[in-house]
Amino acid sequence: MRVEELRALLEEVRDGRVDTAKAHERLTSAFREQPFEDLGFAKVDHHREIRQGFPEVILGLGKSPAQVAAIAAEIVSRKHSLLVTRADEPAWIAVREQVPNAEYHALARCITLRGESTPGKGTIVLCSAGTSDQPVAEEAAVTAELLGNTVDRIYDVGVAGIHRVLSQRARLSAARVVIVVAGMEGALPSVVAGMVAVPVIAVPTSIGYGASFGGVAALLGMLNSCANGVSVVNIDNGYGAGCIASMINHL
Amino acid sequence: MRVEELRALLEEVRDGRVDTAKAHERLTSAFREQPFEDLGFAKVDHHREIRQGFPEVILGLGKSPAQVAAIAAEIVSRKHSLLVTRADEPAWIAVREQVPNAEYHALARCITLRGESTPGKGTIVLCSAGTSDQPVAEEAAVTAELLGNTVDRIYDVGVAGIHRVLSQRARLSAARVVIVVAGMEGALPSVVAGMVAVPVIAVPTSIGYGASFGGVAALLGMLNSCANGVSVVNIDNGYGAGCIASMINHL
Amino acid sequence: MRVEELRALLEEVRDGRVDTAKAHERLTSAFREQPFEDLGFAKVDHHREIRQGFPEVILGLGKSPAQVAAIAAEIVSRKHSLLVTRADEPAWIAVREQVPNAEYHALARCITLRGESTPGKGTIVLCSAGTSDQPVAEEAAVTAELLGNTVDRIYDVGVAGIHRVLSQRARLSAARVVIVVAGMEGALPSVVAGMVAVPVIAVPTSIGYGASFGGVAALLGMLNSCANGVSVVNIDNGYGAGCIASMINHL
Amino acid sequence: MRVEELRALLEEVRDGRVDTAKAHERLTSAFREQPFEDLGFAKVDHHREIRQGFPEVILGLGKSPAQVAAIAAEIVSRKHSLLVTRADEPAWIAVREQVPNAEYHALARCITLRGESTPGKGTIVLCSAGTSDQPVAEEAAVTAELLGNTVDRIYDVGVAGIHRVLSQRARLSAARVVIVVAGMEGALPSVVAGMVAVPVIAVPTSIGYGASFGGVAALLGMLNSCANGVSVVNIDNGYGAGCIASMINHL
Amino acid sequence: MRVEELRALLEEVRDGRVDTAKAHERLTSAFREQPFEDLGFAKVDHHREIRQGFPEVILGLGKSPAQVAAIAAEIVSRKHSLLVTRADEPAWIAVREQVPNAEYHALARCITLRGESTPGKGTIVLCSAGTSDQPVAEEAAVTAELLGNTVDRIYDVGVAGIHRVLSQRARLSAARVVIVVAGMEGALPSVVAGMVAVPVIAVPTSIGYGASFGGVAALLGMLNSCANGVSVVNIDNGYGAGCIASMINHL
Amino acid sequence: MRVEELRALLEEVRDGRVDTAKAHERLTSAFREQPFEDLGFAKVDHHREIRQGFPEVILGLGKSPAQVAAIAAEIVSRKHSLLVTRADEPAWIAVREQVPNAEYHALARCITLRGESTPGKGTIVLCSAGTSDQPVAEEAAVTAELLGNTVDRIYDVGVAGIHRVLSQRARLSAARVVIVVAGMEGALPSVVAGMVAVPVIAVPTSIGYGASFGGVAALLGMLNSCANGVSVVNIDNGYGAGCIASMINHL
Amino acid sequence: MRVEELRALLEEVRDGRVDTAKAHERLTSAFREQPFEDLGFAKVDHHREIRQGFPEVILGLGKSPAQVAAIAAEIVSRKHSLLVTRADEPAWIAVREQVPNAEYHALARCITLRGESTPGKGTIVLCSAGTSDQPVAEEAAVTAELLGNTVDRIYDVGVAGIHRVLSQRARLSAARVVIVVAGMEGALPSVVAGMVAVPVIAVPTSIGYGASFGGVAALLGMLNSCANGVSVVNIDNGYGAGCIASMINHL
Amino acid sequence: MRVEELRALLEEVRDGRVDTAKAHERLTSAFREQPFEDLGFAKVDHHREIRQGFPEVILGLGKSPAQVAAIAAEIVSRKHSLLVTRADEPAWIAVREQVPNAEYHALARCITLRGESTPGKGTIVLCSAGTSDQPVAEEAAVTAELLGNTVDRIYDVGVAGIHRVLSQRARLSAARVVIVVAGMEGALPSVVAGMVAVPVIAVPTSIGYGASFGGVAALLGMLNSCANGVSVVNIDNGYGAGCIASMINHL
Repeated sequence: MRVEELRALLEEVRDGRVDTAKAHERLTSAFREQPFEDLGFAKVDHHREIRQGFPEVILGLGKSPAQVAAIAAEIVSRKHSLLVTRADEPAWIAVREQVPNAEYHALARCITLRGESTPGKGTIVLCSAGTSDQPVAEEAAVTAELLGNTVDRIYDVGVAGIHRVLSQRARLSAARVVIVVAGMEGALPSVVAGMVAVPVIAVPTSIGYGASFGGVAALLGMLNSCANGVSVVNIDNGYGAGCIASMINHL
Repeated sequence: MRVEELRALLEEVRDGRVDTAKAHERLTSAFREQPFEDLGFAKVDHHREIRQGFPEVILGLGKSPAQVAAIAAEIVSRKHSLLVTRADEPAWIAVREQVPNAEYHALARCITLRGESTPGKGTIVLCSAGTSDQPVAEEAAVTAELLGNTVDRIYDVGVAGIHRVLSQRARLSAARVVIVVAGMEGALPSVVAGMVAVPVIAVPTSIGYGASFGGVAALLGMLNSCANGVSVVNIDNGYGAGCIASMINHL
Repeated sequence: MRVEELRALLEEVRDGRVDTAKAHERLTSAFREQPFEDLGFAKVDHHREIRQGFPEVILGLGKSPAQVAAIAAEIVSRKHSLLVTRADEPAWIAVREQVPNAEYHALARCITLRGESTPGKGTIVLCSAGTSDQPVAEEAAVTAELLGNTVDRIYDVGVAGIHRVLSQRARLSAARVVIVVAGMEGALPSVVAGMVAVPVIAVPTSIGYGASFGGVAALLGMLNSCANGVSVVNIDNGYGAGCIASMINHL
Repeated sequence: MRVEELRALLEEVRDGRVDTAKAHERLTSAFREQPFEDLGFAKVDHHREIRQGFPEVILGLGKSPAQVAAIAAEIVSRKHSLLVTRADEPAWIAVREQVPNAEYHALARCITLRGESTPGKGTIVLCSAGTSDQPVAEEAAVTAELLGNTVDRIYDVGVAGIHRVLSQRARLSAARVVIVVAGMEGALPSVVAGMVAVPVIAVPTSIGYGASFGGVAALLGMLNSCANGVSVVNIDNGYGAGCIASMINHL
Repeated sequence: MRVEELRALLEEVRDGRVDTAKAHERLTSAFREQPFEDLGFAKVDHHREIRQGFPEVILGLGKSPAQVAAIAAEIVSRKHSLLVTRADEPAWIAVREQVPNAEYHALARCITLRGESTPGKGTIVLCSAGTSDQPVAEEAAVTAELLGNTVDRIYDVGVAGIHRVLSQRARLSAARVVIVVAGMEGALPSVVAGMVAVPVIAVPTSIGYGASFGGVAALLGMLNSCANGVSVVNIDNGYGAGCIASMINHL
Repeated sequence: MRVEELRALLEEVRDGRVDTAKAHERLTSAFREQPFEDLGFAKVDHHREIRQGFPEVILGLGKSPAQVAAIAAEIVSRKHSLLVTRADEPAWIAVREQVPNAEYHALARCITLRGESTPGKGTIVLCSAGTSDQPVAEEAAVTAELLGNTVDRIYDVGVAGIHRVLSQRARLSAARVVIVVAGMEGALPSVVAGMVAVPVIAVPTSIGYGASFGGVAALLGMLNSCANGVSVVNIDNGYGAGCIASMINHL
Repeated sequence: MRVEELRALLEEVRDGRVDTAKAHERLTSAFREQPFEDLGFAKVDHHREIRQGFPEVILGLGKSPAQVAAIAAEIVSRKHSLLVTRADEPAWIAVREQVPNAEYHALARCITLRGESTPGKGTIVLCSAGTSDQPVAEEAAVTAELLGNTVDRIYDVGVAGIHRVLSQRARLSAARVVIVVAGMEGALPSVVAGMVAVPVIAVPTSIGYGASFGGVAALLGMLNSCANGVSVVNIDNGYGAGCIASMINHL
Repeated sequence: MRVEELRALLEEVRDGRVDTAKAHERLTSAFREQPFEDLGFAKVDHHREIRQGFPEVILGLGKSPAQVAAIAAEIVSRKHSLLVTRADEPAWIAVREQVPNAEYHALARCITLRGESTPGKGTIVLCSAGTSDQPVAEEAAVTAELLGNTVDRIYDVGVAGIHRVLSQRARLSAARVVIVVAGMEGALPSVVAGMVAVPVIAVPTSIGYGASFGGVAALLGMLNSCANGVSVVNIDNGYGAGCIASMINHL
């Protein structure tokens, strides 16, 4: 209930057009109103686009293909953009039947259906350290592009051959915000952040073995970065990085 | 050596005003030139303000008062803003002698001397969950203010009494970027991020006991946030959060 | 041997109806008596219902289908309620042959056969944060229902969209005890506990990825809750939560 | 604003005794009203007693003596019971000046001033494993007593001499809820929970050395308890256990 | 080279029956002699039975069936007892062809061929906490029996029903050494050690879920045992426990 | 109540010398009888010597000097041997007043008063890896000697100079049981266990820095020992090792 | 651009043979020049052989067979030696088609094609503790041999039978650098480093179970080695050790 | 006993100049001879210089000043070089009395007395990332210099200002071996190793806060380095790095 509705209701009460019992009921009901659709196993949040600038997103992990497809159908029915992350083949098959014009990004493991989106103000530069970090990087890219951003991908520029990233200084300087994806020792964000004057979103990946501990080494490296401007998201959370970068790029 | 200097030099060579030996020496020397002052134990980075939009900052932790004061004097001599973080009483005494008009923020454990700074475009809202999180929150605030930002502090609004943060909806909505500081379970960033449409920088603190493990519980809570727009910095890293928020607020 | 039996025995000895050797033997044997059935690989505890208010429960994890079925048959032969948790398909097939009228709850991975049970005094409200937490939540629900409780399920009300849980205030207020199931950052129990005046049993789930570390992030979040009334059980331990909630609801 | 106030207001509007502008203002203001006192560094929650059955409690850890005393004075000014936990000597001295009739429990490290409280329905039995666990146990006892409960203390009954706890069967059976405090291997809650039919709140302590890891061994032992009815709070969190036990004892 | 051989050699040199070059060569060669058979990928230690009282044992984990079979054949060729632990079906098939009269213990995952062994002096009592701990317990039992010991198995006597282990006091008292196998919270060794006056070898198992962390909770519980006489071996190391118990039982 | 007392009582009942009410009372009381002295904050276990072959031992850690002295006095009053471990200077001063003929072992941080003890059957050999491991080694030695054992100390024989431990082969061979104390990488028990045919009790110490993690590296090294016969106690638990070694040496 | 090229260019400008625009362009382009081939998903580093003495190596882990084969083909096209580590069967099949004369080392999981290499100055001795450590040891051996070194393999000489490694003193003394591969407690490097005067590269392996934590126990053991000359690489990183040993052996 | 002594002895036996009893005794005694001095609490290893190329070094940590001084005196009495690491002020005072011409390096916390040493073949370059890493770096430098090496220090060249380390390319290229000391994210060794063709010894330091976990973040970063040639020593182990670098520099 917006302020105008409240004022109108009170005037109707004053004028006797609405009795107090009815007004009481409408006010009470307004407090109870749910800004979401309840599917039983899930409450689809239709106001999120208004509140946060982008629609509810489906994390495929731990949901059955049928659940993913049902939530996807509900979202699309409201004309929202659709994004399913961590979507495996069976989830894609289930969604495709409900949302025939959806698209599957196999490397990024994402399902999308692009609705309208406000274009971002600048370019998001996306760096990754190694070839194996690509799935996570692509999840970030697909997310950012769906939300209306231009993404410039700079892949395989890990710090062990420092000239590779140094040679990209021009493209980096053109960024309004940078996403850096890296596994193993996770040192790339520190180097990149020292080269630019814009925020760097660091994404540790689970790429590595032994004492990489599934991405913990990279995560710790990024949290302890001695460079300015580095903030960090969860291991392998390409979606989160894409989403934050888009928020910044739309400010 | 800027592009213009290079062009000028080449023209001088062509015109015979500079011989090749001399030009060779100048080019070689340009490659070698260090954009920092070497104090032996420290290399003060005088180009950082140009590269990154703010000056070199001194982390007081692990440096002797004499070292802190020497670096501070070097920075101030170039008319840069001064910021020393994690500065205890002895460091402050040592700096005060070298930089008499510096200021000490005891709660934030920071020493500052404000130079010129470009004003940020909007307001940085700074929330903290509990009274004990204040030192870290103030480090973020002092940093952001030194860098030219307006900071709106909302303190002691932890999630256990959810009405406290809900009652601040209006101030939160006015933010261009939000910093959320919380120890213990670190749940506040998730709730705040669900209420705003701008980036949230989450700062875990070491406040807590037992299974808080010096801030690890809060850190993990924030990294695993299911809300959009949350990125995380190191435990107790108020400075880092203030710095990133300022970068975003100047975009 | 109850007090009355002891007194009777002593009177028989005094009256010469039982000689001392026999009495000695009976007393000694009473000390040795086992309140359980020994199946070799398992000792089924038939007195647990008397001691603790509910029967022995079978944790399916790490037992062969044949072992599960044999223990189940032994329990049912004594007219006790049957509950097998973490029961996969093969365990269900094996039990079904021994206990034809048993029931399988596929989502909750539980096998039950309902015996008599004392009704709980109030309602157990069961909240879960996300769709993927449902299997654990259902394990709690099946357990509590088997033990005679009414369960009110409120699913998918994670803190990232705080209005979802706030809109359930009325149902929460009606609870005599609340179970909150959440993975990832595990912040929901803190918020719920701030809204009610009854005990909250928090169940972390292994849902999440990266730095959720198989439920550790949620576990730590819950242990560090700054809200009153939150106690915690093991990761994914829906059964334990259902059982404690039932105990409290029967007080 | 309660339901009755809302109904009265609407009737006044209908009858013309209050005009719509005024009514609009009062309704809007009701939504804005803060159920807490803002001290700047802290927001004292005066409605918590209504919402949760006991007053706001001050965690002394990480607060200055002056801050503790100011919050204490504010709480006492509203005639609420006062409880400060983790209060060291300086905090006690500061509070004593503001609240002269407060009491200091040195072993429990608590400051209290007892207001009115509803008596609990039964007895809370409080067991501890070793002499060194007493400070944590006493924090739980002081909390529970302040909240109106009778506490029966059974100390130094660790499992290494199992006859010690077995000899307390009668007192344990008389409990409506049991708190078990233990460090080192934390095995006592499992044994106690097997002897009673009521909920057991387990409190791991940081007592131990080497691989006890500051209470982690005890915490893990308790979370993995194979006994029914055990839920766990944070390491050394005597207050939390006392509070939950009181909630249960007042149902 | 034994002392007697050395003396004889020196006398031969003195008497001129052996020249110094020859003697020098024999002494040098004695220093170089290898008390093991080199299979290239493995050095089978044939002197271990002399040095340590039992033969070289094969840990099946991480070896190919062919490697296991080759080492087994080499051991059996010297008339030593054979023990392969962590032997899966393929290893058993490979060994059976090389050592036709070997025996497979499927539950214990061991292959044995019993040679001569000195009988132990007393009884080894072997307790386990739950049905799922049996494979590890059986590995201990098979090992101890192969080494000449009598083993008394007491299974499924976890501390949650403390009367189960208390009812076994007589059998426990008859032990010369006790092995206790337990997963989850690992509390059984503490209770058993409080009931006997002989050494207790505690074996944590990986049985459990969530915060059992693959046996870490049980391991920590056992290391922190406040009972006397408890020492601990690696998680799931039934073999190690059986071997130590046998050493003690042969003293 | 022993078996003979029970038989006598029953005969008295039969003969009418004791009436059934009296007999009933005596039997009931026997069940209730506590084999410990209750000091309020501690229950001193006077039957432990009978049950386990050595008296109750006081862990000084976390107890006040007054508590330590009171328990010590109680133990000595029953003519038991006294052992206080982790006893600092203030504890020693407090005990000395209550137990004037007690002895303080400063390096081992132990207080003892030697009562009667049965001599062990053989020698306990005690090896330590480095000079800094001595306090823990001495705690083991003092414990074992108090319990009637002969201890042969072999100190500073770490594996980095392998000839040092190899040169002690004769003394090692004379052991009935070996205790090995080592910090840092904790490799000494593996080497020693390969040289002897008797049980090895391994004690990790907290000596080291960096990735020794307060003894965790040594603990893990010992738990993973590939040598036969090694069992492990808690980090720095010299007392525990001395006690187990004594148990074995008295078999 | 080398120093000679720069000098030549400047002379051409002076002499008017090259105009300043052209010279400017060439200098600028020299700064931009990439010493790598960009395959889109990977940047193959063709200058690494010049910079570091050996060619770019492909870590097979996390790359698709097609990606591995494409990078391999690119490397071979430049006449560089080829090394793919962590190469499974499908990767081998894919590479074999692109590089027909490549070789597959199944045990070491490596693909190689040997180009020219400078012979190392001495011998690399490679020790492993157990049979199961062989795959990692072979990865080190294959790497070192490809880089021109002679490798002397000493396998299965774990410390539990210390005479096995002691008997290899002569071969160890002949080493210019030693690689020691060990899982479980990881004690072998300490012993070996005490026997030689050359650097020891320690490689922990993930061989073990329970508290070996996938190689962490071995890693910590090696990092805490009290012997001189031990440095450590990542768990299972045979390649890294081979590469470092070759660097040292070519000095 | 050397080969020549053995041959001489045998010839004397043959010639009757030494009888067999005497020869037997001498041979036996040679086996028993200890190549170390036993101070009771320490065995000073006088043959280490022969075996390993440098003398026994004293780790001051955990030793009393008196113990340090006694071992120092013993070492100096044999004309060996003296090195005490982790030496605090009291240790220095105690040593100074025994070894008047010793020298104290306060920043490096080392005591030295330089004996003869063979000069290393090249230069050891020593880089550190930050000012606070200096004490560890200096420990490495003092060690390497004592062992006869030339050390070129490059301090405060952390990766956040990548131009600082890039500007040192010439000095780095002149190294025969490089030591890199870094705390926080520990990224510097990866960058440096990509710039040189010689071995890099990486030393993580405990400098940092929060999620640096006392150097663990840096340690993991270094172990996971994707650059070739990096091996790692324990956190803060400057001595170890200096020692290995010296070994390599003397090959």
